[in-house]
Amino acid sequence: MVVILENNATEEQINNVKKHMEDFGFRIHESAGVQRTILGAIGVKPGFDTRKIRILEGVADVYRVTSPFKLASKSFKEEKTIVKIKDVEIGGNKIAVMAGPCSVESEEQIFKLAEVVAKSGAKILRGGAFKPRSSPYSFQGMGEEGLKLMREAADKFGLLVITEVMQIDQIDLIGKYTDIFQLGARNMQNFSLLKELSLSKIPVMIKRGLAATIEEWLMSAEYVLSGGNENVILCERGIRTFETYTRNTFDLSAIPIVHKKSHLPVVADPSHATGISDQVPPMARASVAAGADALMIEIHHDPENALSDGPQALLPDTYLNLMNELRLIANAIGKTI
Amino acid sequence: MVVILENNATEEQINNVKKHMEDFGFRIHESAGVQRTILGAIGVKPGFDTRKIRILEGVADVYRVTSPFKLASKSFKEEKTIVKIKDVEIGGNKIAVMAGPCSVESEEQIFKLAEVVAKSGAKILRGGAFKPRSSPYSFQGMGEEGLKLMREAADKFGLLVITEVMQIDQIDLIGKYTDIFQLGARNMQNFSLLKELSLSKIPVMIKRGLAATIEEWLMSAEYVLSGGNENVILCERGIRTFETYTRNTFDLSAIPIVHKKSHLPVVADPSHATGISDQVPPMARASVAAGADALMIEIHHDPENALSDGPQALLPDTYLNLMNELRLIANAIGKTI
Amino acid sequence: MVVILENNATEEQINNVKKHMEDFGFRIHESAGVQRTILGAIGVKPGFDTRKIRILEGVADVYRVTSPFKLASKSFKEEKTIVKIKDVEIGGNKIAVMAGPCSVESEEQIFKLAEVVAKSGAKILRGGAFKPRSSPYSFQGMGEEGLKLMREAADKFGLLVITEVMQIDQIDLIGKYTDIFQLGARNMQNFSLLKELSLSKIPVMIKRGLAATIEEWLMSAEYVLSGGNENVILCERGIRTFETYTRNTFDLSAIPIVHKKSHLPVVADPSHATGISDQVPPMARASVAAGADALMIEIHHDPENALSDGPQALLPDTYLNLMNELRLIANAIGKTI
Amino acid sequence: MVVILENNATEEQINNVKKHMEDFGFRIHESAGVQRTILGAIGVKPGFDTRKIRILEGVADVYRVTSPFKLASKSFKEEKTIVKIKDVEIGGNKIAVMAGPCSVESEEQIFKLAEVVAKSGAKILRGGAFKPRSSPYSFQGMGEEGLKLMREAADKFGLLVITEVMQIDQIDLIGKYTDIFQLGARNMQNFSLLKELSLSKIPVMIKRGLAATIEEWLMSAEYVLSGGNENVILCERGIRTFETYTRNTFDLSAIPIVHKKSHLPVVADPSHATGISDQVPPMARASVAAGADALMIEIHHDPENALSDGPQALLPDTYLNLMNELRLIANAIGKTI
Repeated sequence: MVVILENNATEEQINNVKKHMEDFGFRIHESAGVQRTILGAIGVKPGFDTRKIRILEGVADVYRVTSPFKLASKSFKEEKTIVKIKDVEIGGNKIAVMAGPCSVESEEQIFKLAEVVAKSGAKILRGGAFKPRSSPYSFQGMGEEGLKLMREAADKFGLLVITEVMQIDQIDLIGKYTDIFQLGARNMQNFSLLKELSLSKIPVMIKRGLAATIEEWLMSAEYVLSGGNENVILCERGIRTFETYTRNTFDLSAIPIVHKKSHLPVVADPSHATGISDQVPPMARASVAAGADALMIEIHHDPENALSDGPQALLPDTYLNLMNELRLIANAIGKTI
Repeated sequence: MVVILENNATEEQINNVKKHMEDFGFRIHESAGVQRTILGAIGVKPGFDTRKIRILEGVADVYRVTSPFKLASKSFKEEKTIVKIKDVEIGGNKIAVMAGPCSVESEEQIFKLAEVVAKSGAKILRGGAFKPRSSPYSFQGMGEEGLKLMREAADKFGLLVITEVMQIDQIDLIGKYTDIFQLGARNMQNFSLLKELSLSKIPVMIKRGLAATIEEWLMSAEYVLSGGNENVILCERGIRTFETYTRNTFDLSAIPIVHKKSHLPVVADPSHATGISDQVPPMARASVAAGADALMIEIHHDPENALSDGPQALLPDTYLNLMNELRLIANAIGKTI
Repeated sequence: MVVILENNATEEQINNVKKHMEDFGFRIHESAGVQRTILGAIGVKPGFDTRKIRILEGVADVYRVTSPFKLASKSFKEEKTIVKIKDVEIGGNKIAVMAGPCSVESEEQIFKLAEVVAKSGAKILRGGAFKPRSSPYSFQGMGEEGLKLMREAADKFGLLVITEVMQIDQIDLIGKYTDIFQLGARNMQNFSLLKELSLSKIPVMIKRGLAATIEEWLMSAEYVLSGGNENVILCERGIRTFETYTRNTFDLSAIPIVHKKSHLPVVADPSHATGISDQVPPMARASVAAGADALMIEIHHDPENALSDGPQALLPDTYLNLMNELRLIANAIGKTI
Repeated sequence: MVVILENNATEEQINNVKKHMEDFGFRIHESAGVQRTILGAIGVKPGFDTRKIRILEGVADVYRVTSPFKLASKSFKEEKTIVKIKDVEIGGNKIAVMAGPCSVESEEQIFKLAEVVAKSGAKILRGGAFKPRSSPYSFQGMGEEGLKLMREAADKFGLLVITEVMQIDQIDLIGKYTDIFQLGARNMQNFSLLKELSLSKIPVMIKRGLAATIEEWLMSAEYVLSGGNENVILCERGIRTFETYTRNTFDLSAIPIVHKKSHLPVVADPSHATGISDQVPPMARASVAAGADALMIEIHHDPENALSDGPQALLPDTYLNLMNELRLIANAIGKTI
């Protein structure tokens, strides 16, 4: 922590600030500039609220020197984390693809789509059984029946499963069926749920909240890592801005930033980011080019009658063509899909 | 729902759109303009995803005609909801004040502050026992011990209690001690928790999410109302914007907007909105002037040593002075505190 | 400037950073923490781009210690600036009110409204003669004819005039008619225009840009101050956020922040901030309570037929009632209107 | 325009709304739904402010049916615009590249960099002679001397020139030296300047404003098109959001959206969007993959000593390598560079 004092801070004020810093357990390094005195606080205190110093008389500003996340940071672990599940790796040179419907709707639907996923060369089947919906009047998911169907479909076609967990008491149940827990954007700061997931051995994919800074997103990863679950995957799915022509603003620059600040792999979800199917292919292409470790793509054989988010789902043929294009782009940057 | 067709939509496309609308159960009213045809969809379907029509060929745009919330809307219930708890009313002509520390920290602390709250004329004691913290390394609250102390302090000074609930399995426990459940901003779209709270008889105050539109906030209220709990209170506590000199941007215009769209009372929380104590008094004054039904204000007798959010807490004397100013402003607009 | 080095920065990297800092003319104060070394840069260089240090190998972060604005800052001038124009003061204990139509439309209109303004006790007539419109097909203002009419109407009723200047070659013309130049939100960073206005003796009111931080807004003020024009007034008129129920988000907390960081007076414009007339009165009340030095309010005797922004204009009677309410609130906080 | 009436709108209110619509010159198509009456306004009025109807009693909402821009829209001109300048095309299958320094600093600098640009296969030299700077204390550009040097350097290496125009009285001067006018993000809604540029025969590249919606950006294009200048190019350069780890949020999804709504070509500027050189290559790759018609990239042979924006400039070698990667990605999507 670095404390910048006001130009006109009195000696009494400066001494008071120093006393507080010492009381909080910091050693102090003082530096007098042309106009201002700067106090360096020596000592590491991850949870310290810097506003405690900022409110003192004579203080102009306070900056944190160490990032608030540790286990998630690149300075803690230099080499990139590769999350391995059976024969699939997320974070390596081969871009993983998670595809499937927004919601599991029926046996026929999920088996049909799992077949498409397998045919495309993707290794992970996505699908929701418990759905977070902004309206209480919308379809809320098939529940355990959906989980079973998805597991059977995935097993039949040699795929892994990723599905969303919404509340603590679903962890055990969903854990019986899934290979990866998905934590939804609206639950990114559901700290109770994060703590419970940190105790699981199953990998957790954390979607970035609509208004979450990259730092907060990494702090949510820190919750899971600090509880002992090292298999954390991040997922960029668009943030909320003033623009209304898109459902969200897809923050692709988050990908190289995460790779710079953290060792964790990052997935891009162009389906939720754009919300409309014709925007998905260009943004999927851009995701690969930007360096995403994996992609999450929604598909449906009958989008118009999908029970949720049909409008952002690709038809199987469009998806299969897209996968071919993505392979070319991956190759262009020295990767594979 | 109103469907705007492209200028150059073909008859075949228009017929296809109409067929889909009928399949979804709408009756259709067609209107041909100078350049464009417009299809009015007649029939009410609260959870309908308008993107299902927007993705069809020939469609330029789709607008929802009815708001997605019903029970929370002014057109459902014209007269304002007054939440009554014992002798306290929230939503009437007397502005309710909820004050207290961010976290309950000790018996001495909460009793000292409850006394200040009572002395100020406020009727509701706030304080956290289970704390949502963005860092896993920060103080997480005293738990049940904190609840007990808060209840005792409130009872001693004739106050109501409001405290935050973070997860479903805390509802029963917290329900034994509190008069109002607070749902935190980061849990505003924790739909699992909303559903459970809708089954309670205890009033629920829903804080607006950092990136929640007013419509989404009212949809969260709809979740609670639709489950049968009619005692819903809204709380504006600042939204996230690009500005960095403030912790959040306090969206005071949400107050008259909520009063126009909904019958529910709305509380203003200048402490969280601004994050720094010297900004709290002007924003508390502005909240009253803007028409807030209640205020939530953090106070602490020793902010520098508070275990959470001390920097935004007012000292007891500052708070007592502020209450006097607020009374004058309330009177100026025909209300009382 | 404070430079934070990476945990694992090598001595070679640190020496390289130090060399660069010295080359840029800074003296260096080094401080070694538990994990990190911090370099304090001593020397004041207002325009310095801190990214020049941030891109060097081994640098984790760089913070500016001095604010980028000087003449606009409170540390440069402690006492509040009061802009005096004839017998009107902006920035003192009496809240100034600027009222009038969005655009001057006719002799009858501007005289009728000037009479209302005078009757209300306000001292400044607002009105646009050159209008910035987002559509090239919208009414662009009456031009010089509008200026003349506004001046005559103001003189007849003993009012000052404020009107917008959009381009450099209008400064002389408009300067013949106005008492205050208004710089519109979309021109807040029109640096060419700011420079020319800095050479004028006429006060300049700078509206905050839709996406301008408070710091950038103060930097625009710095442009005008640094050219020698000391009569700068700031105007908060709403910022752009994700919320769509309001036209803009009125950032009232900018008022106490500006008062803390700067000596310049700040005006609140609830008409543009909200965009709809029924939101104007509560937000005008809140502006006074938040400490605004002045208000800018749009009025029109026939809003439905106004040539621009009619929907946000108050009818004369609504405005006159509002002024009475505002007086009570001003008194409640020890001010007058 | 479609007007949605309140559920409980009275017949008198409905008639009043209809009368107003007729007075504004619309014909009306009425449609009574289960709960609500909808009025379709027939007739095209580009500049009409829909709030004029929204403020009437009984009106719940108003939607515009036609987009506010016409000449810029795809429905006005189906085929894509290709801006041709000498032998360079922007908007065709070959991706154009504009590269060069932020500012022209010296003869040596601009010639050295022009040589790099030519060597890379790019056809357009960028560079600023008049610089918009947020601080009055920063380097403001070399002025006409810079223009001359850039023209000479471009001519020597067979390149076109693009440079920024900041004010009306620079148009003639800059027009003597440049092939494309660049309109900066902060001037995107400088309507006076837009109008003057619409009278020029020289192509204009309009950078998207920091808080400009895609619609507003297209409206600025409309200004130039409506004055008779058909050679308009758009440039996405990042928008302002809450995220602080990036300088701006690069809105790449704007590229496919513009291609859907408009016939105009769109350039991506990863240098300004990210602000830090190590983010530029991944975002340049993503821009090509997302379908950008051209790229604008800042380069400098000595970024640490650049007079402006050095930290976002690529070194010549990094840039030449990047161009090779971009070629592979362009090929992967069926384009060339």
